[in-house]
Amino acid sequence: MNYRVLPLTKLTEHFARLPGIGKKSAQRLAFHVLRMPEEEAKAFAESILEAREKIGYCEVCKNITDAPRCAICCDETRDRSTICVVEDPRDVIAIERTKEYNGLYHVLGGLISPMDGVGPESLFIKELLLRLEDAEVKEVIMATNPTVEGEATAMYISRLLKPLGVIVSRLAYGIPVGGNLEYADEVTLYRAIEGRSRM
Amino acid sequence: MNYRVLPLTKLTEHFARLPGIGKKSAQRLAFHVLRMPEEEAKAFAESILEAREKIGYCEVCKNITDAPRCAICCDETRDRSTICVVEDPRDVIAIERTKEYNGLYHVLGGLISPMDGVGPESLFIKELLLRLEDAEVKEVIMATNPTVEGEATAMYISRLLKPLGVIVSRLAYGIPVGGNLEYADEVTLYRAIEGRSRM
Repeated sequence: MNYRVLPLTKLTEHFARLPGIGKKSAQRLAFHVLRMPEEEAKAFAESILEAREKIGYCEVCKNITDAPRCAICCDETRDRSTICVVEDPRDVIAIERTKEYNGLYHVLGGLISPMDGVGPESLFIKELLLRLEDAEVKEVIMATNPTVEGEATAMYISRLLKPLGVIVSRLAYGIPVGGNLEYADEVTLYRAIEGRSRM
Repeated sequence: MNYRVLPLTKLTEHFARLPGIGKKSAQRLAFHVLRMPEEEAKAFAESILEAREKIGYCEVCKNITDAPRCAICCDETRDRSTICVVEDPRDVIAIERTKEYNGLYHVLGGLISPMDGVGPESLFIKELLLRLEDAEVKEVIMATNPTVEGEATAMYISRLLKPLGVIVSRLAYGIPVGGNLEYADEVTLYRAIEGRSRM
């Protein structure tokens, strides 16, 4: 016989569908929700609905935003001559955390991946080209991940951009800071040697 | 300047408040919710509210249930002469998974822990004593965790129960199946030797 409590099972299944959450963790999370103060559980449920309703794409850079235009695109103090092209909004957050980059972004919404049926037309590449009609833009930094798809996408876009007369650059490859040469793979190490700089 | 998207930040914070979920995982989960199909996100939010609304305590054993009485207490095929006393509903699920126990349960809702201000009166101990007025009950198995609090609670309850003439037993201690003697701690090993059985 099955003694499951249906609402709990449903909640557990929803948690288990989230990435990186297994069956046991999902059960633990579901029980945690049962023990939460009532208002907190309500606020949690509402935050899910609210995030879905209010968040959309920035009309300029396709980053996520709850306004028509994202806060970075609206910020007058940012350098409008540089656009950093990234795969998704999480990459924007990662680069913003460095506090070193002061230009704008362009979020592609994915990477070209013929295996998964993602062609250039499903990404926000047209929108990037439109932005370049503005003569203010001097440089486009390709900051896609250093994977096969990331490389292919960067290559594809750089070929489209070069005839337009903008500088197209790519993030540096090399050994990560705090990393260990011993554990670096050959390709990374080779790129690190190739890209060496004078001290 | 802060470029946070408020609804996303709120959702991330809610995820980060769950046990075992750090900042980075919380962000990943929040982004996953943004990419979910609309109906799935709605169903997720509803499952949180529904679990909170519909789930309560079984009037007999204090296990969680969405009915006045839980499915185990309602099941006529279960052995009503044995009650297994556990700390919380997750322990019921764990014991049920063994498919070996066919008696009833009693969920205490916690363990006696003076350090955290939890005394016997905050647990469902009175309710357990009431159930024992039914002459049908022959044995009470103390299945609280083998921690200081679990031991103290088991000891406290067994002292209350013994005068009532029921058998009070405790889960066996020993080395876990598939475990390694080398890594067993001294107390566990001592208990395993002490509790040895004939082959």
